[in-house]
Amino acid sequence: MSFSQRLERAARLVEAQLARILDIAATEGVPSRLVTALRHATLGGGKRLRPFLVLESASLFRVPPEAALPTAAAVECMHCYSLVHDDLPAMDNDDLRRGQPTVHKAFDEWTAILVGDALQAVAFSQLAGPQAYGDAATRSELVHGLALAAGLGGLVGGQYLDLEADKLGLPAQPTAADVERLQAMKTGALIRFACEAGAILGRADAAGRQALAQYGTLLGSAFQIADDLLDVEGEAAVMGKAAQKDLRKATLVSVLGVEEAKLRLARLEAEAIEALRPFGDDAEVLRDAVRFVVQRRA
Amino acid sequence: MSFSQRLERAARLVEAQLARILDIAATEGVPSRLVTALRHATLGGGKRLRPFLVLESASLFRVPPEAALPTAAAVECMHCYSLVHDDLPAMDNDDLRRGQPTVHKAFDEWTAILVGDALQAVAFSQLAGPQAYGDAATRSELVHGLALAAGLGGLVGGQYLDLEADKLGLPAQPTAADVERLQAMKTGALIRFACEAGAILGRADAAGRQALAQYGTLLGSAFQIADDLLDVEGEAAVMGKAAQKDLRKATLVSVLGVEEAKLRLARLEAEAIEALRPFGDDAEVLRDAVRFVVQRRA
Repeated sequence: MSFSQRLERAARLVEAQLARILDIAATEGVPSRLVTALRHATLGGGKRLRPFLVLESASLFRVPPEAALPTAAAVECMHCYSLVHDDLPAMDNDDLRRGQPTVHKAFDEWTAILVGDALQAVAFSQLAGPQAYGDAATRSELVHGLALAAGLGGLVGGQYLDLEADKLGLPAQPTAADVERLQAMKTGALIRFACEAGAILGRADAAGRQALAQYGTLLGSAFQIADDLLDVEGEAAVMGKAAQKDLRKATLVSVLGVEEAKLRLARLEAEAIEALRPFGDDAEVLRDAVRFVVQRRA
Repeated sequence: MSFSQRLERAARLVEAQLARILDIAATEGVPSRLVTALRHATLGGGKRLRPFLVLESASLFRVPPEAALPTAAAVECMHCYSLVHDDLPAMDNDDLRRGQPTVHKAFDEWTAILVGDALQAVAFSQLAGPQAYGDAATRSELVHGLALAAGLGGLVGGQYLDLEADKLGLPAQPTAADVERLQAMKTGALIRFACEAGAILGRADAAGRQALAQYGTLLGSAFQIADDLLDVEGEAAVMGKAAQKDLRKATLVSVLGVEEAKLRLARLEAEAIEALRPFGDDAEVLRDAVRFVVQRRA
């Protein structure tokens, strides 16, 4: 299978899993309008990079895709929740996401808040239920890692810093280190966890887990710089969201300039590929993922 | 120790635990304004009924308070998150909570959304970390139970039904069964979990766990009717929140009338006390909790 076929397979698998979760919710009496809003938030496309990273990092340890799927779906639920809340009027106030109206536009604000709240809870119930993984230690480690990636040192803390800079004007002159810290929390923590999750699922030794965590950290940084470069160079039509919008916030591109940011991106690309050395040829798909993230145009 | 002393002890213990969690967050570089908002959301008083129920149900199985405390704090984090989000302008739009400005009033809306999001993540990281409970099966069971109580069949689903009735006018004429279903999700699920958590912590047998779950269900229903009666009869000054406000929503009091609601409350009181029979004299504090919930005046 080529890289793009594997990426598509991961997207197909995780969408089917998310659809199954919501089908079950519908049969259990969850109000139909809420289920429709949850579908809108989770089944609206996207590259599904994070679930792909879970499946492929698990595959390094011979964990089959179907065994990694509850974790992949949990990570994607968490990602989707963060997008729904970030888009809210009180936060980034975005009308479009993946070329579609955001949840608060398609429904309303209170529904969007509850959709995000529900997706965070669903992420954890996915991981902690005995049907997901027979081994309770694995379940607990996954929950703990995901909770840390979601919390004050992860998604929430990063979004807070991002909005603080924007809404309270702090700090007035962010340094590259300020921006890197923010992005390591807002984007990096969940991508890192997606990669580390494969090691948890595969009961990897400390060195294997550390290598994947390092890979995830570097990949997350590369992803963010590539995204910021896209915002500068991209067109709204290609991306399905308002281009340039993120420029009101400090990025490494705005702080360092385009050329320096591109150099940094190339360095991160090399380092992320290097981090996979312990896994030899088995890690070729994850190497391709680095190239994909660095070169993507939408 | 008298009942009120035990209730106060639980409140003191859980406040100290919440303060510790936030002190650690502050030392780990969480922005100070966010920590202040988290303190506002969690340390502003309240009866701390849910943590009390965790500690006392655990105590039936000789689990000491300090061992039950991470679970008690996790349940209270989840409760506080739900209050912060329920108070938001897009939801119930409340300005006061426990006599203090709500989080979005004291800070702003985006901070309040993130405070709630963070508290949900913190609840799960509390439970799943190896420092909380050595036994991974216990950790997983607690996480799974809390996630279900928080999710579509619990807090989120209940709040959705409540707002749907209010904002979309559905259903036009709610029956007592509609209201009971809503309240079992919105209030009941977390109170039930607080009681069941003691059985999980104590590795109780199926009968013991079932008895506590049943007790929690009945207590949750009694709590809600008592609360609705207070809204009808109470004064804003006594309760520290706008009395009568909840009347725009259907309650068992508005559907059944005050007298029928009081009869139902008395029946629930008797049934909740009866559910504790298997625990004999050990459950006297939990019996007192029923009387406290039924008779409270604020």
